[in-house]
Amino acid sequence: MAHIQLPEGLPGIRGAMAFRPETAKPLNELVEILLHGPNSLAPSERELIATYVSSENDCYYCQTIHGAIAAAGLDGDEALVKQVKVDFRDAAISDKLKALLVIAGQVQKGGKHVTAEAVADAKRADATDMEIHDTVLIAAAFCMFNRYVDGLGTTQPRDEEMYRERGKRVAREGYVAISKEYLPTAITQ
Amino acid sequence: MAHIQLPEGLPGIRGAMAFRPETAKPLNELVEILLHGPNSLAPSERELIATYVSSENDCYYCQTIHGAIAAAGLDGDEALVKQVKVDFRDAAISDKLKALLVIAGQVQKGGKHVTAEAVADAKRADATDMEIHDTVLIAAAFCMFNRYVDGLGTTQPRDEEMYRERGKRVAREGYVAISKEYLPTAITQ
Repeated sequence: MAHIQLPEGLPGIRGAMAFRPETAKPLNELVEILLHGPNSLAPSERELIATYVSSENDCYYCQTIHGAIAAAGLDGDEALVKQVKVDFRDAAISDKLKALLVIAGQVQKGGKHVTAEAVADAKRADATDMEIHDTVLIAAAFCMFNRYVDGLGTTQPRDEEMYRERGKRVAREGYVAISKEYLPTAITQ
Repeated sequence: MAHIQLPEGLPGIRGAMAFRPETAKPLNELVEILLHGPNSLAPSERELIATYVSSENDCYYCQTIHGAIAAAGLDGDEALVKQVKVDFRDAAISDKLKALLVIAGQVQKGGKHVTAEAVADAKRADATDMEIHDTVLIAAAFCMFNRYVDGLGTTQPRDEEMYRERGKRVAREGYVAISKEYLPTAITQ
């Protein structure tokens, strides 16, 4: 049971967002830009960063839905998503993404854990300053989202098909568009 | 030196926000609603929550600027701000705010650290569901902001007077208004 009275039937962050639509609006805009908007990193690469950080923070809802969104952009390759969570160093992803995942893992532990060596490695693997910035902010943002979802004790159904179907929709339509389903029109306009 | 090439002369999060104004916009809107907008918790109470979490995360820039904003709303009582950081249980603040700071400290450690007992204590001290929600989200958001600021290695001057003066301005004008100084007009409109 959630720690406060959240609207029923909305799992994970959706219940929290429906409870407080004023803050849901900038939260959805932030994640839209970071994960779904135009970027030199593919949406699935950015979703893998979000999934990995959520896994390190042990947030079931976030790692499952973002893992599903990542898989939707990878022809349904759920094995790759799992491999990134278990040990990304052995995963079939680019050296650049591996270097960015190292930085993301350091941010998850705390901002001061990010090392000059990890940043230099990412630059050597051709990561741009913007890609490093976005990696740091994605990892930091999921340290917020994970705490928001678990800190309120939200409902997190164990229904893989639900996440899979929703993952496909978010990958296609994005965060802001899909939030209109559960936020008041006055907020999303 | 910052890990990436940030605009010069803008300390802490301001340099990061000027580097990436697209994400700065929802970040400023989020903090405006959470810390400065209409709320049954006073702005200085919410700033104390932000300051305490930033102190627990050892982020110099965030704890100093938000401590200064809190003090500006407390007739300049910097001793109280310091007491909240050192041991809020002995500070001259309400029992409700103490109970909310317990929850904020749990969120800082991780979402799953929040206990039903801490939430029940806050409710016994007359905290509403909305106040508990906002406390969880403020604490979670500062786990993001602190990691963003330290994870990029931003410049964080040791100049107390700079923070004190800016704290007064933010307390008066809010976050979105003041962000127009360093974000492009096209973004802030």
